[in-house]
Amino acid sequence: MAGSLDSSPAHAPLSPLRFLQRSGDVWADRTAVGFGDTRLTYAALLARAERIAVALRGFGVETGDRVATLLPNVPAMLELHFAIPGAGGVIVPMNTRLSVAEHAYILEHSGARCLVTCADFVHLAENAVSTLDDPPRVLVADGPEYQTLAARGTGGPLQVPSEEALLAITYTSGTTGDPKGVMYTHRGAYLQSLGVLAEARLDCSSAYLWTLPMFHCSGWAFVWAVTAIGARHECLGSLDPAEAWRLIRKRGITHLCGAPTVITMLVESEEAQPLDRLLDVFVGGAPPTPALLERARALGHRLTHLYGLTETYGPLAVCARRPEWETLSDGEQAVLHSRQGVGSVVTEPLRVVDADLRDVPRDGETVGEVVMRGNNVTIGYYRDPEATAAAFRGGWFHSGDLAVMHPDGYIELRDRLKDIVISGGENISTIEVERALAAHPHVLEVAVVGHPDDRWGEVPQAFVVLRRDVVVTAEELQQFAGERLARFKVPREIEFVESLPRTATGKVQKFVLRTLTRTARR
Amino acid sequence: MAGSLDSSPAHAPLSPLRFLQRSGDVWADRTAVGFGDTRLTYAALLARAERIAVALRGFGVETGDRVATLLPNVPAMLELHFAIPGAGGVIVPMNTRLSVAEHAYILEHSGARCLVTCADFVHLAENAVSTLDDPPRVLVADGPEYQTLAARGTGGPLQVPSEEALLAITYTSGTTGDPKGVMYTHRGAYLQSLGVLAEARLDCSSAYLWTLPMFHCSGWAFVWAVTAIGARHECLGSLDPAEAWRLIRKRGITHLCGAPTVITMLVESEEAQPLDRLLDVFVGGAPPTPALLERARALGHRLTHLYGLTETYGPLAVCARRPEWETLSDGEQAVLHSRQGVGSVVTEPLRVVDADLRDVPRDGETVGEVVMRGNNVTIGYYRDPEATAAAFRGGWFHSGDLAVMHPDGYIELRDRLKDIVISGGENISTIEVERALAAHPHVLEVAVVGHPDDRWGEVPQAFVVLRRDVVVTAEELQQFAGERLARFKVPREIEFVESLPRTATGKVQKFVLRTLTRTARR
Repeated sequence: MAGSLDSSPAHAPLSPLRFLQRSGDVWADRTAVGFGDTRLTYAALLARAERIAVALRGFGVETGDRVATLLPNVPAMLELHFAIPGAGGVIVPMNTRLSVAEHAYILEHSGARCLVTCADFVHLAENAVSTLDDPPRVLVADGPEYQTLAARGTGGPLQVPSEEALLAITYTSGTTGDPKGVMYTHRGAYLQSLGVLAEARLDCSSAYLWTLPMFHCSGWAFVWAVTAIGARHECLGSLDPAEAWRLIRKRGITHLCGAPTVITMLVESEEAQPLDRLLDVFVGGAPPTPALLERARALGHRLTHLYGLTETYGPLAVCARRPEWETLSDGEQAVLHSRQGVGSVVTEPLRVVDADLRDVPRDGETVGEVVMRGNNVTIGYYRDPEATAAAFRGGWFHSGDLAVMHPDGYIELRDRLKDIVISGGENISTIEVERALAAHPHVLEVAVVGHPDDRWGEVPQAFVVLRRDVVVTAEELQQFAGERLARFKVPREIEFVESLPRTATGKVQKFVLRTLTRTARR
Repeated sequence: MAGSLDSSPAHAPLSPLRFLQRSGDVWADRTAVGFGDTRLTYAALLARAERIAVALRGFGVETGDRVATLLPNVPAMLELHFAIPGAGGVIVPMNTRLSVAEHAYILEHSGARCLVTCADFVHLAENAVSTLDDPPRVLVADGPEYQTLAARGTGGPLQVPSEEALLAITYTSGTTGDPKGVMYTHRGAYLQSLGVLAEARLDCSSAYLWTLPMFHCSGWAFVWAVTAIGARHECLGSLDPAEAWRLIRKRGITHLCGAPTVITMLVESEEAQPLDRLLDVFVGGAPPTPALLERARALGHRLTHLYGLTETYGPLAVCARRPEWETLSDGEQAVLHSRQGVGSVVTEPLRVVDADLRDVPRDGETVGEVVMRGNNVTIGYYRDPEATAAAFRGGWFHSGDLAVMHPDGYIELRDRLKDIVISGGENISTIEVERALAAHPHVLEVAVVGHPDDRWGEVPQAFVVLRRDVVVTAEELQQFAGERLARFKVPREIEFVESLPRTATGKVQKFVLRTLTRTARR
């Protein structure tokens, strides 16, 4: 075994690019991705990625250069997740729901050399690019140049510079301040994908429906994991529940992911039906409500709650279902399944700590901050050493999420650090109040924020979305909550709204709700 | 992210020790291992491993020191897989079926500082140790000293020197020559375990029966993989089919592994019955016969063929079942499932090459040698640079297995390099002849070797084990084989035997059979 480690025959760099290379080889003739009537085999997907990688090199992309995408869930978005790193580049997947100013910021901050978009978004892309001094080259994935290169260009093997090399920069959707560029390495993405495989029960006969945007943490690593195991990606033009259910039935879908809002929309749809097979549904971004868990259970779908952040390559914790839970009541199960759970099999210890980085007791009561470290944690924020140092103080990534650790080792989020309501000196967890209200059978969604109050400083205020065709009064909901919560936690004000304001990634924008309450009062 | 890579909060060394640390934390109260009436939780298993690690340090085991085991599948064997590396040591699991001379050779060659055995094997161990100039300290795992240390000693966190550090040395059972010490690293074992998890469909409610010896490639990495996902290990005192079936039923077993002989013994047993759940059976070491595949299918068990070597941490290929096979006849499926298959998800390309390391065509006909490389390939033979260099010539590990590559990317073994019969200048694959005979409904097992012949040089000779209570003549079998094989491949001699001679790891000892044919003739 002479020579350096990397040249040893017993050492191969860890990279998700290997997953497509393997599947392009051993699953050559099987369908990799479907979109409408288009089907691509794994051999074809690999060949296209290899050709686009060479083309990007031809456009001047050098090792370490950033290439941004502004694409919905189309096959090109999947192939670019391999083609861009395979050219030695770094993929910067932009959220299609951001504004022109935000896109321009990300393009400038990342120093993207190319931007790949499609006909539907090219206008948006051109607007963002036009504001830049050093604009990236714009490619249109469904245009003739890209399609010709992908179908008939010269290809070459995908290259992995090293397992520690930068693979992707995913910008946070931050509710305040500028987006931050979260850096992913080849090694981190590879290990995170194997962790997802261990938890998600995917195999080569699985079919995965893209209800979650691929630009969001590379689709919680499912871009890589589904490819790794040779399962089939099925793209969805738009998030229309009727179309989603048509595909779920017609294409034999077995797995899908989404934020609770998206999954709620799906299972509450009139098209929702039990299937002749198990549908594995993964929910993340916020805890599933008891109503959602119950509805999925009634439909015969298996719902699993995942927890993670952009900074953790998507889900690094899973509310792993214990066999002994099966004997509990629906209500008890819902409480257990709404917890964030335990670190996945590739995750270093998931801790809940006090201000001095000491673990809080496992009592289900003491609140601390969730901190994490390990291979599936970002190496830092791109070109932002200060934010990186602040987030990693003490050698652990600080999530900003407040949680308790239960005696069984499962964590349960109580709130975001900045979302706590402090009323008369008491900390009120808005999540706790939201859960109490969400338990009401007529409540579809709810968000709670602090409302300024002369006497108490703040009091909780709830914004409630009701289910279709039901009637309930604020007083009835207050009485319902009062049976479950301490008196000071019951919202003084309950406003009924059509929908909740959300970020582009589906998180409730509590700062918008806070503005509403302040405006209304002043 | 100042500082070296290893101190980065986004970098954790890859090690299977992490699996037990995690399960001891998140599955603390769940059963890790059962043996008779003994049950140990994951918290208890971790605590015991931590105490034994400290005790080994106290006995003078320093980082990199070897500690051998001579143990059957008992809980102590499982905990030592974590305790020895957790003390910074290297585990050397010895095959209990070897001779005293072989044990002495391995102890001396590895330079083991300690040897852990049990009451049943302590006599054998003492005999081996007594021949050595610098004997290791002998510990008896079911003796009072070990048990006190494990139950009440001082514990400390398991230590991972680095992911490239040596974890284990598994000695080959080589049919000729001295055993060679195959070296495993922490990184290799970790990645191989994640590969097994991706293929084996294990989850925390699975129960794994130890029908495969743990000393054999750390139980094909299931020692680590089962622990990683928080499933339950169930130990089996002896390989008695009645007892195995009792446990399979009583303990809710979902997974087990074994060589075809062991699995044949299980499914042909009178106790074998269909179960009310899926039993995943993994077969390796030799291809499953059509009879075995058919019997398992009739019982409703899912049989998967794995392929690998001691040098590849056990299975690195899997005959992955394609959904489209389901529509084929039993016979067609048996042919497909008996192939060695494709590299697993963590495996670098599995190649079949000619003498110049060029890939053979994917035609299912051209025979070449199977070569492999990557993270789940050994870093070499311990203290044997010459054998290492020979095995890794050209930067690829040479398996010595001859195979074809089918158009669908699956490999199929044709023979061992040294097991080919050359008759009248024609190469005859003994495996091909064995398969033709094994297709006969009365044949339980068969082995074919070359028989010296004045005219042809060699001719194929078969040794056949028949099923219970059946009668068939050599002529009938020759006629049966003649309908399936070229005339020159049909065995000239067929001998009926009670059983086939096997190595301690279950491989047929063809050199013994060859001796028999030569002795018989001269």
